[in-house]
Amino acid sequence: MLFEYSNKTIKSIRVKITDKPGYLGRLTSLVGEMDGMFGEIKSVHIGKGYKIRDLDVYTDGEEQLKAILKEVEKLEGIEIIAVKDIVEEYHQGGKFKIVPTVPVETIDDLKIVYTPGVASICKQIAADKSLANQFTTIPNNVAIVTNGTAILGLGDIGAVAGMPVMEGKALLFSCLADINGIPILIESHDSEVIIETVKNIAPTFGAIKLEDIKAPECFEIESRLQSMLNIPVMHDDQHGTAVVVLAALLNIAKYTFINLHQSSVGFIGLGAAGTGIFKLLKAYGVTKLIGTDLNADAKKLFSELGGTPTDLNGVMKDSKIVIATTGCPELIKPEMIQSGQVILALSNPNPEIDPELAVKSGAIFAADGKSVNNALAFPGLFKGALSSKARYINDRMKIAAAKTIASFALEGDLVPNILNRKVHDAVALAVEQEAFKSGAAVNPE
Amino acid sequence: MLFEYSNKTIKSIRVKITDKPGYLGRLTSLVGEMDGMFGEIKSVHIGKGYKIRDLDVYTDGEEQLKAILKEVEKLEGIEIIAVKDIVEEYHQGGKFKIVPTVPVETIDDLKIVYTPGVASICKQIAADKSLANQFTTIPNNVAIVTNGTAILGLGDIGAVAGMPVMEGKALLFSCLADINGIPILIESHDSEVIIETVKNIAPTFGAIKLEDIKAPECFEIESRLQSMLNIPVMHDDQHGTAVVVLAALLNIAKYTFINLHQSSVGFIGLGAAGTGIFKLLKAYGVTKLIGTDLNADAKKLFSELGGTPTDLNGVMKDSKIVIATTGCPELIKPEMIQSGQVILALSNPNPEIDPELAVKSGAIFAADGKSVNNALAFPGLFKGALSSKARYINDRMKIAAAKTIASFALEGDLVPNILNRKVHDAVALAVEQEAFKSGAAVNPE
Repeated sequence: MLFEYSNKTIKSIRVKITDKPGYLGRLTSLVGEMDGMFGEIKSVHIGKGYKIRDLDVYTDGEEQLKAILKEVEKLEGIEIIAVKDIVEEYHQGGKFKIVPTVPVETIDDLKIVYTPGVASICKQIAADKSLANQFTTIPNNVAIVTNGTAILGLGDIGAVAGMPVMEGKALLFSCLADINGIPILIESHDSEVIIETVKNIAPTFGAIKLEDIKAPECFEIESRLQSMLNIPVMHDDQHGTAVVVLAALLNIAKYTFINLHQSSVGFIGLGAAGTGIFKLLKAYGVTKLIGTDLNADAKKLFSELGGTPTDLNGVMKDSKIVIATTGCPELIKPEMIQSGQVILALSNPNPEIDPELAVKSGAIFAADGKSVNNALAFPGLFKGALSSKARYINDRMKIAAAKTIASFALEGDLVPNILNRKVHDAVALAVEQEAFKSGAAVNPE
Repeated sequence: MLFEYSNKTIKSIRVKITDKPGYLGRLTSLVGEMDGMFGEIKSVHIGKGYKIRDLDVYTDGEEQLKAILKEVEKLEGIEIIAVKDIVEEYHQGGKFKIVPTVPVETIDDLKIVYTPGVASICKQIAADKSLANQFTTIPNNVAIVTNGTAILGLGDIGAVAGMPVMEGKALLFSCLADINGIPILIESHDSEVIIETVKNIAPTFGAIKLEDIKAPECFEIESRLQSMLNIPVMHDDQHGTAVVVLAALLNIAKYTFINLHQSSVGFIGLGAAGTGIFKLLKAYGVTKLIGTDLNADAKKLFSELGGTPTDLNGVMKDSKIVIATTGCPELIKPEMIQSGQVILALSNPNPEIDPELAVKSGAIFAADGKSVNNALAFPGLFKGALSSKARYINDRMKIAAAKTIASFALEGDLVPNILNRKVHDAVALAVEQEAFKSGAAVNPE
């Protein structure tokens, strides 16, 4: 399952290891006995009678790692050469670059991609602006906009500190959907500043992805921008997450024989993610929707949107399916679980209740946030929206994405492998088709 | 010389040609006799007794091309297979893409570049913002900002129509300086909108390159943004052009034994380019600077900046060196030329006077705009500014760039080959050093 070690530290241990049967086994067994886990294991060099290997080791932190290294050093035939912080190494200098898609090798090339050749293309676009779709990257550029107020589970750490996440999203766009994701950092808490700024630079892009902007500002920023612009504007923390949760629920319903439409769904936490999931389930046809939040304004908004506000106990008592997105570890106590409930405790890195404990306490099914990563949804969602030239991403497009994601999961799994390009291609196609059918885009045929 | 066919149409002719001596010669001779010129010639396929070749042909337009094709068809042993618009072909889908600089192939990779691994990097930057220089692309990202009011010689065609030029600049940044140039299109004529918008997105970038924004707004936008931001802000049409013109003048002075400091320099046209060149020559130490423009406000600004306004005849009578940037072809008549004058008629694609005619009329040296392309300056200028972490690009840095560019020109040439990476690397190094010496950057040593 993806992101199973969310709260672990990753280090790469380079060892010189005797190249005979049993040595690697003794090393890995020792690390396992001390609660360390392995990621990638690579051979770096084969010498006379020895190998150099890089082993990515997951631990709970420096202390555990030191203890493990101390014991490893005692093993015969194994020598630690280096311990590298592979996370820092990966992020050195940032994570993307811009490269030409055309040759720029000769003076002739230059004359075509730049002056004077480029002038004829500019003139064509000046005469017919829609030709920008043909002759520029605009229809394939997506702004990844943040003000840094809700970066991962870290909170309001500022837009610049959020850049590594934005670059990560750009990478996923590139690898999974061939989209140019372009980070845009706006250091402001003022919604008006964000709206105005994004509106002003929007001509550069085919779509706008709002990212890690905290609630409730995210709701207004998204809806006002979408009403101003003729291109899709989507806040990923709401809708990307919602699509993946719906995909997971479709599979859970299948495995547990629950009828999703007729089930009561209860929300604990009505921030960006909770509200996004609520909106999508409502659009999907779920009618019994109750929810709670510590923030009275959030409950008020929930009520205005058609949900029934209650309290924590109310949610736990009256819901067939509980969806928790609070950021509060262990908020749900075992004794609160009703027999036969589905529990999605989605806060990362620490869920509201451990899924195993929830099942032991009577839940028919439980999962945490490690299995519902929004990166399963956004690349295909945006690709389909861009390829159909949709003016917005509507609920029907999101539901089509969720169904497609669900259909690719292996039997027993909630969602498919995030690195499976076929999933993203299929999501894009489903979204494109639904954009035409629902009127979000004009079908050219 | 670069861009020698600025006002020509480029088409690629694919021919099936008998593979025996003389056939290619007859074809190229015929095209030459009909005033067509050749760019790249490539072999696409070798068949039995024939070759398929793509020949890039420059003509004055469709009519001349058609006439040439008609005659070519009559040649024995030569068959025209296709005529392609290679300019349109090059620009299909735009000209750049964003790619990862780290592997994203395994689930482990994902955990490092994205959640959960990325969180530790975000936290480090939140605690010490300067670490963004180490762990993000920010210090290597340059915004290429335009509002489309002065795209090439095409005028105010709008930012979206200017995108092919911005992408061209991004390509040159990538190929010549390994910089991420990111186009930002702002469809506004309001300087306040541009200033506010760029200020708001500035945290994303290591520098701001203003591009193809018309005078006089470009002056205020640049100076106000530079005063607000702690990163370099440079309007390329002013300063990139100025650096290359100064480089050319340094070589002209060498070839003609003119003392640049003591020469009177006259400007015809005081727009972005003219004013930028004026400012840099003044900073270089030229004291006798006169100029004229049809626009009274432009002349007023010129006077405020320390120049002496006059009229066209005044410039032509009293200048040793004339620099024309008017956009008016044939503005300078042969009889206006003084014996021994240097004439730079820089308007593209058609100069204020043909250089050959100027020399025939008494000029000691004359050149047009094809030889002073600002792409010789901006990649190295920005690279040096970024690598030194300069807060701005000052005149000393520009002069260092000009001297370096001049030094790479082959004997008799004004400037070196634009595709010579060594030139750009050397410019970057000279600019970096001068940034430290001049106090634009803090020397870490």
